[in-house]
Amino acid sequence: MKGPKPPLDFSYRYSRVTAARKESSVKSFYKYFQIPGIGNLAGGLPNASLFPFDTLEAQTAQPQRWKPTPNNPNDPSKDLFASFAGSSIKADNDVSVPAHLTVPHASAVANPMEKIDLTTALQYGQAQGYPPLYSYLRQFTRENLQPNVPYLNGPDIALTCGNTDGMSKALECFTNVWSEERDWIRERPGILCEEFAYMSAVQSCRPRGLAVTPVKMDAEGMLPTGPGGLEDILQNWDESKGLRPHLMYTVTIGQNPTGGTLSIQRRKDIYALCSKYDVIIIEDDPYWYLQFPSAAACEAEARNLPASPAAPVHIFKKSSGYPFLDSLVPSYLNIDYDGRVIRLDTFSKTVAPGCRLGWITAQPAIVERIVRISESGTQQPSGFVQSMISELIMGPQPVMSEFVKKSKKEQVTFTGWKTDGWVRWLAGLRGVYERRMNRMCSALEDGRFQLKQGTPLKTSESDWAVISKTEMYSFDWPRGGMFVWIKMHYESHPLFGQIPGPRLAQLCWIFLTTTPYLVLAAPGLIFSPTPEIAEKEGWKYYRLCFAAVSEDEVGKSAKRFAEGIKAFWLIKDKKEMEDIDPEISGRQMEGELTDLGMNLAC
Amino acid sequence: MKGPKPPLDFSYRYSRVTAARKESSVKSFYKYFQIPGIGNLAGGLPNASLFPFDTLEAQTAQPQRWKPTPNNPNDPSKDLFASFAGSSIKADNDVSVPAHLTVPHASAVANPMEKIDLTTALQYGQAQGYPPLYSYLRQFTRENLQPNVPYLNGPDIALTCGNTDGMSKALECFTNVWSEERDWIRERPGILCEEFAYMSAVQSCRPRGLAVTPVKMDAEGMLPTGPGGLEDILQNWDESKGLRPHLMYTVTIGQNPTGGTLSIQRRKDIYALCSKYDVIIIEDDPYWYLQFPSAAACEAEARNLPASPAAPVHIFKKSSGYPFLDSLVPSYLNIDYDGRVIRLDTFSKTVAPGCRLGWITAQPAIVERIVRISESGTQQPSGFVQSMISELIMGPQPVMSEFVKKSKKEQVTFTGWKTDGWVRWLAGLRGVYERRMNRMCSALEDGRFQLKQGTPLKTSESDWAVISKTEMYSFDWPRGGMFVWIKMHYESHPLFGQIPGPRLAQLCWIFLTTTPYLVLAAPGLIFSPTPEIAEKEGWKYYRLCFAAVSEDEVGKSAKRFAEGIKAFWLIKDKKEMEDIDPEISGRQMEGELTDLGMNLAC
Repeated sequence: MKGPKPPLDFSYRYSRVTAARKESSVKSFYKYFQIPGIGNLAGGLPNASLFPFDTLEAQTAQPQRWKPTPNNPNDPSKDLFASFAGSSIKADNDVSVPAHLTVPHASAVANPMEKIDLTTALQYGQAQGYPPLYSYLRQFTRENLQPNVPYLNGPDIALTCGNTDGMSKALECFTNVWSEERDWIRERPGILCEEFAYMSAVQSCRPRGLAVTPVKMDAEGMLPTGPGGLEDILQNWDESKGLRPHLMYTVTIGQNPTGGTLSIQRRKDIYALCSKYDVIIIEDDPYWYLQFPSAAACEAEARNLPASPAAPVHIFKKSSGYPFLDSLVPSYLNIDYDGRVIRLDTFSKTVAPGCRLGWITAQPAIVERIVRISESGTQQPSGFVQSMISELIMGPQPVMSEFVKKSKKEQVTFTGWKTDGWVRWLAGLRGVYERRMNRMCSALEDGRFQLKQGTPLKTSESDWAVISKTEMYSFDWPRGGMFVWIKMHYESHPLFGQIPGPRLAQLCWIFLTTTPYLVLAAPGLIFSPTPEIAEKEGWKYYRLCFAAVSEDEVGKSAKRFAEGIKAFWLIKDKKEMEDIDPEISGRQMEGELTDLGMNLAC
Repeated sequence: MKGPKPPLDFSYRYSRVTAARKESSVKSFYKYFQIPGIGNLAGGLPNASLFPFDTLEAQTAQPQRWKPTPNNPNDPSKDLFASFAGSSIKADNDVSVPAHLTVPHASAVANPMEKIDLTTALQYGQAQGYPPLYSYLRQFTRENLQPNVPYLNGPDIALTCGNTDGMSKALECFTNVWSEERDWIRERPGILCEEFAYMSAVQSCRPRGLAVTPVKMDAEGMLPTGPGGLEDILQNWDESKGLRPHLMYTVTIGQNPTGGTLSIQRRKDIYALCSKYDVIIIEDDPYWYLQFPSAAACEAEARNLPASPAAPVHIFKKSSGYPFLDSLVPSYLNIDYDGRVIRLDTFSKTVAPGCRLGWITAQPAIVERIVRISESGTQQPSGFVQSMISELIMGPQPVMSEFVKKSKKEQVTFTGWKTDGWVRWLAGLRGVYERRMNRMCSALEDGRFQLKQGTPLKTSESDWAVISKTEMYSFDWPRGGMFVWIKMHYESHPLFGQIPGPRLAQLCWIFLTTTPYLVLAAPGLIFSPTPEIAEKEGWKYYRLCFAAVSEDEVGKSAKRFAEGIKAFWLIKDKKEMEDIDPEISGRQMEGELTDLGMNLAC
């Protein structure tokens, strides 16, 4: 009989510590807790009446606060709001009214999966997550975000304190600590990552002794084949230098720092190799909802190139129920027949980084191990954020005696967003970031070339021929995420040859921070997983983020960046160039930049 | 020259992973961030204007909500409120008015150590903690809670996601993973703990391969000398069975489960041994403010015994500034000349467990390593709870344009608690728990003995002599914490001898859960760090918690417990006894109880 198969058993990949964790078998005791009228003197919990918080409240946005952009190519109506018409969320004329959310001290709702109150949320809880939020996110993940996970019975989830915590737990789950002084080199575990990577994640592998092996990438992301591609690395692995990596860390949408978004075909090719060589995939996906359908067309238009045909949207068996979600390039989970994908989702970019809240999606057996790890560490994410996000999405409670007592104004202002509202909020955020991306890229586009009047040629050619164009930098309009990845063409600088490229890159970085340019760019060095990449390629790049500064500042900063580069290319005197940097020696700065990466590269 | 010495360097004790973590040297880059008008395109932060929360708010208690008890023996005035007279907190007639707290989206305060708003709190932050809360807690710890730490320049702190997280990070800092199948037994690291211990902490040691060695204890806590005491263990350590433990996990105030509180002299003796044998002390202290001065006197009175003289209060060089804090038995930190104490504090019992917020106090070099560990894991506790607790204690901001716009009523209702209020809140909580403890212990006192009319003796003795008293259980009135630790005297049960003691204990536990007794007690088994202790001693004990149930229920439940025991002692028929437990076999239940410990023993 054909049909979904259960996921593979990866327990042989668990670290020694993870394998040694015991499963909790407390369930058989629940019957005692539930004896009617039982006086529970067994637990060590403080009584909820002694918490100093009687409510938690907030002024919150309506889900329609930000204007979305069309879901091209699969939004034929081009009606921005069409996909949300008829949904339960309010009409857009309410948008400016902030809503007032209240998490009550005690809710009358009986079902723990729906009960949102401080008596439960601020008490000791379950490592899997606060029951209402856990059950909401599990359903959202299984029915809307990842409705096509191919293994039998689908994935489970567990809440985390954000993706750094999720990554740390995945590492704890699947890697043993290795140390040069006591272990054999041939036993050294390793991890695969992109050629340019989010270094905070990569750095967390190093103290555990993991060998970090970058995989060659292009604008989309990792390359499955070709020199330095995934197959090349796995097929030709030298076992004497350590174990062939059985773990991969990857950001496949709006990749940090390159902005690349991995196509479905590429995913299939890479997954097939991971399956062949038994690699577990940690898919860190903070930017999944920030995919920019306008990027390709706008890029072509800005460069007077013919618009390339829109990439076909792959329609999996089940729809998410939302055109916006259906329009997004989907997760590795959609092709995860083996159950080897551990996906990390976070509220850091959809709500705020300070939430420290996210979730892991994977096959249930792996999720169970992650929960065991949480139990003796973070235990559970803070009940403050769990209850407020629950209330934001699911609230207010259907039965709530406090609610009745509120003023009419307060009563009408807050309606829980529900899934319709949550998806609408994401679409609105995508709209904001897409417009910022367009603004930054337009400004950068204007400054790519240095135009110089050359000596007129004695020919019949028209005037434009005597203008020489020097390309100072190049970039792709990012298809997703928060970053533009700029390749600098230092080889076209007049002093290239007299001053080594990497030094020129440093001076350029400092020059950009001076008046009147005043721009801080993230140097490519800090996204280089190995010293070799930093030395060979990393110094040639800048990562510009269009998310952090104010909307007004995005275009202005990008313009100042372009002007700074232009001015830098006009420096022809070596002495003048070296004066830019009176203090910092080259080597020192390189080290500092690498450290800086940990802090900047969020 | 005599004077405080710097703490010792314990870096040789760091685990391989911890030693391999790199120090961040980003400081030299701050100057670039601070260039006026700089457009920061380097960071990868989302813009705060896109957070869906415009404010965070709450209805909060006034610090005087609960009535304190006197700080005997060092509160000569016996005026309950005297120690708070003249403080900045409000008069007690305001107590019933709940206050409304608001964390604004953006505060105008410039100093980051004082600025509390969502723009900072919900952004990526520092692993050490949210700057205003970190700086407040650091000052509170150094000036009020631990003003007498003897090493040069005193301790530093770092915020944690609660004490389980703090414990996990301390373990990560100071222990390597050991595994039987690959490592030498003589290399096995170990940890010392109390004979009866908080098993969630102890359990987190096991998957790392640590050998857990319990130290004999009495009602106060660990014994420094005598058989099974600390000196005995360390002096006679058999190196062939593993490394002599260099780590101790201890709860010294209101110990979980025994309720013991360790005197200063005992601390000095134990510390001296730790110093001699180079043991690092992890002091987990969730109940430090729950010390009950009335316990000894009430216990004596209830038993018609002469009141023992009150223990002398040790006055260290510097006062905390608060009679309440001065009255408490102080931390190991007060005698920590070497800098070998890592203290874990938590908001779990002072605010709510769901906060998942606490802090580590230790010498700065150790705190720095803990911060490095946090950076690649939890990063920082949730900004939701950090900002709300900051606002609760430190708020509202001196300059706040939003505040002016509020209604008069809202303006007057909230004043930040400040340290005066925080200490007053703790004193109030202590009052609540002390009254609960008294209530439970009084009820238990009434039921300790089975009184039986014996055959009258033909003597001149008076009537009372013919009443035989059978002691069914004994206990000390706890000097601190949330628990009464009850020793059951099964040897006095009529069926003892016919039914083995441990089995009798199981049946008694089940019997207590039946009508009309309906009491769930925590069995001593689940606090036994080794199977030997469980088998030899653990089964004789129950831990009763007076914190979790409602205040009204405390006395009633304790009374039902006493009545249940009395009824259990009246069962004289073996068949009737075995009928109590038709389902659960002895062995199975023991295993389940151990697991249950993980979940109950918070």
